[in-house]
Amino acid sequence: MITLRRIDIADAGVLIAGARAKAQEIGVPMCIAVTDESGNLVAFERMDGGKITSITIAIDKAFTAAGAKKATHEYGTASQPGNPTYGINSAIAGRLMVVGGGLPVTVEGAVVGGIGISSGTPDQDRACAEAGIAALLATL
Amino acid sequence: MITLRRIDIADAGVLIAGARAKAQEIGVPMCIAVTDESGNLVAFERMDGGKITSITIAIDKAFTAAGAKKATHEYGTASQPGNPTYGINSAIAGRLMVVGGGLPVTVEGAVVGGIGISSGTPDQDRACAEAGIAALLATL
Amino acid sequence: MITLRRIDIADAGVLIAGARAKAQEIGVPMCIAVTDESGNLVAFERMDGGKITSITIAIDKAFTAAGAKKATHEYGTASQPGNPTYGINSAIAGRLMVVGGGLPVTVEGAVVGGIGISSGTPDQDRACAEAGIAALLATL
Amino acid sequence: MITLRRIDIADAGVLIAGARAKAQEIGVPMCIAVTDESGNLVAFERMDGGKITSITIAIDKAFTAAGAKKATHEYGTASQPGNPTYGINSAIAGRLMVVGGGLPVTVEGAVVGGIGISSGTPDQDRACAEAGIAALLATL
Repeated sequence: MITLRRIDIADAGVLIAGARAKAQEIGVPMCIAVTDESGNLVAFERMDGGKITSITIAIDKAFTAAGAKKATHEYGTASQPGNPTYGINSAIAGRLMVVGGGLPVTVEGAVVGGIGISSGTPDQDRACAEAGIAALLATL
Repeated sequence: MITLRRIDIADAGVLIAGARAKAQEIGVPMCIAVTDESGNLVAFERMDGGKITSITIAIDKAFTAAGAKKATHEYGTASQPGNPTYGINSAIAGRLMVVGGGLPVTVEGAVVGGIGISSGTPDQDRACAEAGIAALLATL
Repeated sequence: MITLRRIDIADAGVLIAGARAKAQEIGVPMCIAVTDESGNLVAFERMDGGKITSITIAIDKAFTAAGAKKATHEYGTASQPGNPTYGINSAIAGRLMVVGGGLPVTVEGAVVGGIGISSGTPDQDRACAEAGIAALLATL
Repeated sequence: MITLRRIDIADAGVLIAGARAKAQEIGVPMCIAVTDESGNLVAFERMDGGKITSITIAIDKAFTAAGAKKATHEYGTASQPGNPTYGINSAIAGRLMVVGGGLPVTVEGAVVGGIGISSGTPDQDRACAEAGIAALLATL
């Protein structure tokens, strides 16, 4: 039997609030998704003006980051033409996201969730994801 | 050109809070989903203990209620064997939900969103959806 | 943060061995799937002669049982025409299984995984799932 | 509550007529899709000779353009190998189109719909989409 930890809904709220604050600071309304460490959705928010297409993308970024224990932008690099995981972006019916903005949420060395952001540039998305994680870590 | 109204993220928060309060009252942790009037997800919360399988079901109940402007339990009745919409439950790749717990959010006669609840019995789910809507209407 | 327990790969092996022994006893080669408590696949075995169509069905039975914390045959009853969850069988793109043979794996009151069996009759499938769980509980 | 504007079916007819006229002028029978600002289909026409495979492609181009408030050819550039959104083409089960021919329909600064064209070269598709939009703007 394995004993593990994962975020609860309160943690998810902190992650979203942190990401939202950053999104407001940079003036880009975002879709913000939080999954548990197994990739299942815990909470989601589409800020007013967030893109429709970003709903699924944000959720799938969080899913990918939690499930693979890897930032989606790392897959972006690893899946460039000629690189080892080239083509992996279409895996899992397209759920495997290789665009930046998805980060695993790691506490004391263990992945406890995932956060995925979409609607801005990948760098903006990633900055908001990082802000969400920073907000959570500040509470622990 | 059509002019219409839809819920914003603040309204979605009120809908979720109302549903969550009812879920806590009856002691059933729920998955709570809110879509806009077009069926696109605005906000989602899986209360601690909410079912994994209910994530998609809650989202799809909200999608169905908003998109069809009809409560999902109405489809439940209408799709019984021998009834006119029999078999519609598998439509839209299974997204068309006929199990109770999805309600359109109607303001001044117009559908402005949808709310979908899952994890309890259909009656419990529906009661929480109704509580969410009551909470929103109380603010208007 | 939530702390929880889930089956590990050794536990999954015990679950499969128990189900396999029962399948051999009744002379029906089975597809046997084991998921963790989040519904993600941990182990799978198609015994020689197991049905091709049963691969997905066994996996989805385990997914449903773990994710909904409910036996799939319970959904079979609850979703009969006229009953509250009628039509739920097509939810989650058809992954929500209402045919017997999927059971949550519960240890000390908490769901730690799911087991799903397919290739025989639903009663045969369920008997093998029960045998798998009995084998695991005997080791704890 | 948000108040917004979207195209109606009459507007969609104008968009299609404008695109069709351009398609006839260049001698390429097209699939022409129009969605509202939420990405949901409003009208569709496959001109005699339009490609079967272009039905879904045209619809998804319109969906992408409306939902992301961005031309699909912009995604084509942004998702080239080495660029920030590389790999996004397979997102949303492949619905996120990065091939030219999808344009948001913008009126007075707000996206009110999307138009997607397919069957010709991406440049031909895009020219027809632009012609549709020009026809609509001429009526306002």
